[in-house]
Amino acid sequence: MKFTVNRIAFLKKLKDVQLAVSSRTTIPILTGIKLVADSEGIKLTGSNSDISIETLISIHDEKATLKIEEEGSIVLQPARFFSDIVNKLPDETFSVEVMDRVQTAIKSSSSSFLINGLDAANYPHLPEIDTDQAFTLPVQLLKTIVKQTVIAVSSHESRPILTGVNLSLKEGKLKAVATDSHRLSQRVIPLESAGDFSYNIVIPGKSLQELSRLLDDTLDEITVAITENQILFKTEDTHFYSRLLEGNYPDTDRLIPETSSTQITLDAQVLLGAVERASLLSHEGKNNVVKLSVSKDEIEITGNSPEVGRVNENVSFKNIDGEEMEISFNPDYLKAALNTFGPVEITLKLISTLRPFVLVPSDDNREFIQLITPIRTS
Amino acid sequence: MKFTVNRIAFLKKLKDVQLAVSSRTTIPILTGIKLVADSEGIKLTGSNSDISIETLISIHDEKATLKIEEEGSIVLQPARFFSDIVNKLPDETFSVEVMDRVQTAIKSSSSSFLINGLDAANYPHLPEIDTDQAFTLPVQLLKTIVKQTVIAVSSHESRPILTGVNLSLKEGKLKAVATDSHRLSQRVIPLESAGDFSYNIVIPGKSLQELSRLLDDTLDEITVAITENQILFKTEDTHFYSRLLEGNYPDTDRLIPETSSTQITLDAQVLLGAVERASLLSHEGKNNVVKLSVSKDEIEITGNSPEVGRVNENVSFKNIDGEEMEISFNPDYLKAALNTFGPVEITLKLISTLRPFVLVPSDDNREFIQLITPIRTS
Repeated sequence: MKFTVNRIAFLKKLKDVQLAVSSRTTIPILTGIKLVADSEGIKLTGSNSDISIETLISIHDEKATLKIEEEGSIVLQPARFFSDIVNKLPDETFSVEVMDRVQTAIKSSSSSFLINGLDAANYPHLPEIDTDQAFTLPVQLLKTIVKQTVIAVSSHESRPILTGVNLSLKEGKLKAVATDSHRLSQRVIPLESAGDFSYNIVIPGKSLQELSRLLDDTLDEITVAITENQILFKTEDTHFYSRLLEGNYPDTDRLIPETSSTQITLDAQVLLGAVERASLLSHEGKNNVVKLSVSKDEIEITGNSPEVGRVNENVSFKNIDGEEMEISFNPDYLKAALNTFGPVEITLKLISTLRPFVLVPSDDNREFIQLITPIRTS
Repeated sequence: MKFTVNRIAFLKKLKDVQLAVSSRTTIPILTGIKLVADSEGIKLTGSNSDISIETLISIHDEKATLKIEEEGSIVLQPARFFSDIVNKLPDETFSVEVMDRVQTAIKSSSSSFLINGLDAANYPHLPEIDTDQAFTLPVQLLKTIVKQTVIAVSSHESRPILTGVNLSLKEGKLKAVATDSHRLSQRVIPLESAGDFSYNIVIPGKSLQELSRLLDDTLDEITVAITENQILFKTEDTHFYSRLLEGNYPDTDRLIPETSSTQITLDAQVLLGAVERASLLSHEGKNNVVKLSVSKDEIEITGNSPEVGRVNENVSFKNIDGEEMEISFNPDYLKAALNTFGPVEITLKLISTLRPFVLVPSDDNREFIQLITPIRTS
């Protein structure tokens, strides 16, 4: 294998596949990046046991100015070492040449490295996923769905299924739900491109976070294909594979209350500012709890930690409807939920002191919902 | 105590004194910030056992729009908690009021905190340093001297005196030296403002790093006053105190070679690029060593780690004088040394494979010198 390529263009692609590489893997070859040079261009692959990323630098890519002098393949490792070298090389272009079996020369003007690679034949095969039965999504919408739901996945392995986001497709609607049993995030979108497909899968939250990091905001559409235990997200030149979580996701529909006794409408950012300040005190104290008090004409957030002090936030609002209410909860859950809304008007719907409450955008309360379970205080 | 102040102006000063506060202190009151309000303004103090920073927000400071309604003092802690609160407060101004003995109200429009302070009478007294016998330095020059020397202080406590920078003032010259016994950095400047003073002190390297972080690039001059075991750096509104290290600093003059058998002149940045790349390989391998080879018409930096690979850097140069030479060393020492020069032409002076070599600016080789001890390779 031998090729010459523009350093910056190569580095961008290298950093993309590097997202999938973990230094903590137990499979030594997965600490590396696989390079395959053929008539199409160079294919780069990075993988850990959960996700794999494969991307192509095409010989037609003008910025890459790629010249393939000899086809072939190699695994260079560790990935970070290879990427540091490319990052620091002195010239605009550089070459990679496999010399004696796995010894690989990396050259750029006055600089010359000879590093020990690994035989690419030993690199694990990526899953084969049929993309004939796939649907497409706008990239920005996918990133929004991930941002809105992934906050609620569980970080505990005690119930592994809850570390993922449940994606279900039925009757032309795609629903994404995550819950760690203390809170829940749900987003529903119509999906005409899905046709008659129906799926019900659970994608690891970490995979979706890495996918969001990978997806450039300049990208337009992404193709999604699903098999029994794998999902593939495919853009023009990049494939992102993730394993799926096994098991049944709990039925979350019954958790979302249908009615409420108190509704308040206010600016998400105003409430966020108040709960952020209140949480400074609750974090400093022993119990991470704040209280929301709704009266006829006032909304307050308060916190009290005897060893630290007290905080009182008077929250300006647009409207209060229904009964007076006091409810206590973990402020971090409310902060995370509010951060998914951005600067819009939202409605909080409360039932009682001990029942979960929900947040929805005021102008559309069916498609996006955040639910938070209160904390019982004595 | 009660005052109202502009939030942004206060926060800037608060972050300055916070530099001195460590959460790892064994003296509980030092986790806090002392505030003293009197007729001049508010004095903020932060301290750990090594350094103390005291700064004044003057009632004449237009940006601060400070109004003192009641004089007094309080310690608010931990410092980071207080600073987070000020940072997040909603309004342009806020007020601080000591209510019942040490309970302190912090208010800004709709937000109100009541936190438990500590009695400022229990806060340790800062050293008293007579600034009559002081000298002045341009702030930029002081920051340059610190940057040039502090890289060579030892990070090991086995010889505590080497964790500091030796500052000596004699016959109108100020000399700063640091060495960890593997390398040495020295900068000399003429100092007319010092008059007949003569000092020989050792300032902890960490103190000088914090001082550099504190000193704003917009500042002009700084006043330096020294007592037996303390040093004070004083700008218009800020006092920075550091303890001095006790003990005799080794005589370093004899370490600096007078002669050399090989001299090379080259661009510091070109050499830095080459050694940075070579160090990628040496860091990955077992021995962190690279070799500099100087022949009649070529300069090379090479590294060899059997388990990782080899690197060869051909370094472009301006001039080579003297004998051929091969010398091996820790590339991190050369990188740190080269970073202190910036983009200038430098001269490397070498004696032999086992003797220390020096780097000096080509246009001025007496005032600034970096020395590196080689590594014996088999």
